Amino acid sequence: MRDEDYMKIALKLARKGLGWVNPNPPVGAVLVKDGEIVSKGYHRYFGGRHAEREAIEKALEKGVSLEGATLYVTLEPCDHFGKTPPCTEAILEAGIRKVVIACRDPNPVSGDGVKKLTENGVEVVLGVCEREAKELMKFFLKSVTTGLPYVTLKYAATLDGKIADFEGNSKWITAELRPIVHRLRHQHMAVLVGAKTALLDNPRLDVRLPGKWRNPIRVILDREGKTLERVDLNVFAQSGRVIVFTERERADLPPNVTIAKCGSALEILRTLHGFGIDSVLVEGGSEVFSQFLPHADEIYAFYGVKVFGKGLDVFAGLTQTVDQELDFRIERVVKSKSGKEFLVVMKRCSRA
Amino acid sequence: MRDEDYMKIALKLARKGLGWVNPNPPVGAVLVKDGEIVSKGYHRYFGGRHAEREAIEKALEKGVSLEGATLYVTLEPCDHFGKTPPCTEAILEAGIRKVVIACRDPNPVSGDGVKKLTENGVEVVLGVCEREAKELMKFFLKSVTTGLPYVTLKYAATLDGKIADFEGNSKWITAELRPIVHRLRHQHMAVLVGAKTALLDNPRLDVRLPGKWRNPIRVILDREGKTLERVDLNVFAQSGRVIVFTERERADLPPNVTIAKCGSALEILRTLHGFGIDSVLVEGGSEVFSQFLPHADEIYAFYGVKVFGKGLDVFAGLTQTVDQELDFRIERVVKSKSGKEFLVVMKRCSRA
Repeated sequence: MRDEDYMKIALKLARKGLGWVNPNPPVGAVLVKDGEIVSKGYHRYFGGRHAEREAIEKALEKGVSLEGATLYVTLEPCDHFGKTPPCTEAILEAGIRKVVIACRDPNPVSGDGVKKLTENGVEVVLGVCEREAKELMKFFLKSVTTGLPYVTLKYAATLDGKIADFEGNSKWITAELRPIVHRLRHQHMAVLVGAKTALLDNPRLDVRLPGKWRNPIRVILDREGKTLERVDLNVFAQSGRVIVFTERERADLPPNVTIAKCGSALEILRTLHGFGIDSVLVEGGSEVFSQFLPHADEIYAFYGVKVFGKGLDVFAGLTQTVDQELDFRIERVVKSKSGKEFLVVMKRCSRA
Repeated sequence: MRDEDYMKIALKLARKGLGWVNPNPPVGAVLVKDGEIVSKGYHRYFGGRHAEREAIEKALEKGVSLEGATLYVTLEPCDHFGKTPPCTEAILEAGIRKVVIACRDPNPVSGDGVKKLTENGVEVVLGVCEREAKELMKFFLKSVTTGLPYVTLKYAATLDGKIADFEGNSKWITAELRPIVHRLRHQHMAVLVGAKTALLDNPRLDVRLPGKWRNPIRVILDREGKTLERVDLNVFAQSGRVIVFTERERADLPPNVTIAKCGSALEILRTLHGFGIDSVLVEGGSEVFSQFLPHADEIYAFYGVKVFGKGLDVFAGLTQTVDQELDFRIERVVKSKSGKEFLVVMKRCSRA
């Protein structure tokens, strides 16, 4: 097996942590000795053991000596004391001779793991499957390098770009592809909607899928604080944290509700980053989509084979001309089984 | 080779006639003797030799005896004197023993070819590659069975379903995929637009592609006859026939312009069928799309990765709710190379 093959196994392990480890990145690790995989590990939950440490400890527990072994890890090992001791120490102590890394860690807090390892005589190979690793860790990479969470816009529209009919109904423009929405909610730390959406659609914004999933933090943009008078709304009724951006003050709120100061889309994103949130799924409505499109990194555009004619536009708040380029590129287009829905995934060109 | 393999060759031959033979169907034929293909033919232009006749005559010219041969043909051979003598006669005279047919001819004018052949001791096999043959001959099949042309709607919209920005500009929402539009124009006998589109966009509605192509008949819906005062418009300037549906009378028109009586979408389609037109590509604008959607058999929906917010809706004239199903199913979704455009091809469910 080549380096790429081992790294792909490490990436597959890393993927298991998606949605569980935020705002940490999902990381996977594989230990190889004499051409055999002797141990594997991945980062399972925020604050838990790092992937490489899990792999090393599991090997040692089994009584396997790692003298001369090679470590494949999707992210540069840390060289600092955080919630856990430095991984570089564990690597050196174990006698590992070579470390293959997919992607360097841009977080200054993590220290310079590569330097520490090379200074101690460990051979380091960088950039194996780097593109895949970066894609997997996009939330982490954006938030540590920009101070803003990764923003995904998700809308469900008709062929003619409407997100609700003239009577205001939107359930359901797309239904068959909804499991993809629920996976997005699991993977993102927060889901954001406007007050109108929270009041009119009364969404739960939770994850409904077989198996174990994590519900996202719910974020409501509600300058006037109308939702605060309606704590019976589904967004409040679910367990877990709710953040309401508002200008209103109110005392008797449920304990899971936090109030934050309203502002521009950028200010809101900065505040969310300050709360330790690495990723936001923006779920509408029209005004919120218009406001957050300039800050989006990715768009999940679901379309149902329907036509409303009159109705609510997905970006009613915008005015752009045919000469204006949208800085997005299509990653993939998916047709649903029944042929009644499709999904277009787009990424900001600078991030694609 | 199996029957399907020979029929696929016949279908490939038939395809060469697309756009050239209307309102006849494109038909291909292959003659096989002792397991060898001895001759091929296809219908090349309206009024020209039928595919099976071409194949037979070519074989005989080469001095090949067709005694005991098998004919593969995509459409049931005709049994009547039309622009050409009956194909059944040529088949029987040549001594062909077996005829494999993809699709029966629903046109009563054609006579009962299968009956004539079987009565004369020829073995007939029906329905080989029938689905593919029906797809290829969809214009013909619809027009002879319903008395209406096949209707394809083609629009180019932004992600939010706009076909023009707030300033009325639409050039170009999609450009990379335009060769597909030009192929559609070649294949359809007529292209239809509203007066507003003819006046504001001033389109040529012709085919611009390398190689040989046929320009469609241009049809303009213009109740008030505004375009008739503008014979300098590109739709009139091109060679070939133009049909204007209007309530206005006017004498001094260019010789290529025909006037027809305005009416509902259905009435217009009936009139076009009366003119011998088997297929219409509806190219807009918004009102025309709204009017013809209920009569469309197929939709070519092009989307550019753009957002207009304010602008002209693709179906501004319609009002439908989320409960109303659109009787279309996605056939295929195509992403352009650059990732800046995609195409969704949809077919009416009853025809899919």
